[in-house]
Amino acid sequence: MRDLIAAAEAAADAAGAAIRPLFRSPLLVEAKGDASPVTEADRAAERSIRALLAARFPGHGVIGEEYGADRPDAEYVWVVDPIDGTRAFVTGRPLFGTLIGLMRGGRPVLGLIDQPATGERWIGAQGEALRFRGAMGGTPGTRPCATLAEAELSCTSHEMFTSAEAPRFARLQRACRRATWGGDCYSYGLLALGLIDIVVESDLKPWDWAALAPVVEAAGGAMTDWQGQPLRLDGPGQVIAVGDRALLPEAVALLG
Amino acid sequence: MRDLIAAAEAAADAAGAAIRPLFRSPLLVEAKGDASPVTEADRAAERSIRALLAARFPGHGVIGEEYGADRPDAEYVWVVDPIDGTRAFVTGRPLFGTLIGLMRGGRPVLGLIDQPATGERWIGAQGEALRFRGAMGGTPGTRPCATLAEAELSCTSHEMFTSAEAPRFARLQRACRRATWGGDCYSYGLLALGLIDIVVESDLKPWDWAALAPVVEAAGGAMTDWQGQPLRLDGPGQVIAVGDRALLPEAVALLG
Repeated sequence: MRDLIAAAEAAADAAGAAIRPLFRSPLLVEAKGDASPVTEADRAAERSIRALLAARFPGHGVIGEEYGADRPDAEYVWVVDPIDGTRAFVTGRPLFGTLIGLMRGGRPVLGLIDQPATGERWIGAQGEALRFRGAMGGTPGTRPCATLAEAELSCTSHEMFTSAEAPRFARLQRACRRATWGGDCYSYGLLALGLIDIVVESDLKPWDWAALAPVVEAAGGAMTDWQGQPLRLDGPGQVIAVGDRALLPEAVALLG
Repeated sequence: MRDLIAAAEAAADAAGAAIRPLFRSPLLVEAKGDASPVTEADRAAERSIRALLAARFPGHGVIGEEYGADRPDAEYVWVVDPIDGTRAFVTGRPLFGTLIGLMRGGRPVLGLIDQPATGERWIGAQGEALRFRGAMGGTPGTRPCATLAEAELSCTSHEMFTSAEAPRFARLQRACRRATWGGDCYSYGLLALGLIDIVVESDLKPWDWAALAPVVEAAGGAMTDWQGQPLRLDGPGQVIAVGDRALLPEAVALLG
């Protein structure tokens, strides 16, 4: 696992070096919300990540948002998203992140969330406690929360749900203590620091969640689909992350 | 103006010193979304700010969220909010801020937005260009944007509107290029760096907006109520901030 973690860290370093110069740059200001300069940075970062992983682990597969799947049937498959939270990036919010996940036999075993602007990094590896570093503080580990009535809910946008999903999410939201909007991958990082109790989202692609699940699990939480089942690469991208597993049955009942 | 700016900076420093130790602290994790530890920090910070301003400018008034109004009819009145964005603070997001505004004869003339966790600070003073400092980059100044169809919209939450306001906001949102959620005062700071074009919100209290208007104006933008009129201390807290004044007539027509 040590080599795998070192590779994930090196890949995140390479991605951050490609991404950081564009954040809040005059180029982005001039682009006025057009994501194409970000797509360029995203692609450059993904090429760096792929080159690095291919050199270290020639037998591993890689799935990425920009360049598709190489060897997706390998035992180990890396699943990467250089810039998760494009809208946050484009608007200058330091809540986007670089996501590097590793699946083994279809299950996530290692995940890294990196925040290039604030310098924060979360690393979750199967069988190990969560590692977190960052200048703004925070202690790794989820907090206990027995019922949704006590739970702090987070979701990137109420607009991410289909018309069939929206009333199910609304039912869950009403059961929660409070909701906060915005955040992308960063919300899962905050859940792993015990500051949020539940994140419910939909339409996530594998590169959006593969790195998050090991972080949430290493922190003591759980990440499943809306039926409470393990997330699958070919699933619909409906995601529940909880800091306390006790919340899962109630959440699944309201979303199902 | 130099003494006033120096006082605002000193007040923000004092508030940050009171607030920073609580951010992402175990105390906050244990409070599980209960805002009372934040209220304590908020109060302590407001006491520090009031003591500092009273010592430097005994004739000035002060209005604050926690301790109400002292001498609100003075020529100069400070309007302060030690923690704007309580939900962001409680969930560990570095988007909350300390707001210190100064009104003269009922009009905002000086505003400071401080981000205690990231160390960013915006200072807008009447007749002076915006000052901004921060380690994550950004260039002071709004960007041109002639129509809402090109505009990046931001709003803290779609849930902040009354049932009468919601359809008016929805009409404006549909006219905009895109919307991003979450942000509180930070969105106005990003607008002042040319990364967002319009922020539309409601139910803001004077301490929520008094510091923002001078920042937005010093950056080249404008901040008005939903009728396009100057914000008033006794108004309903319906706010439009635009980076480019050309957006105002279209926004007012859709919100009116």
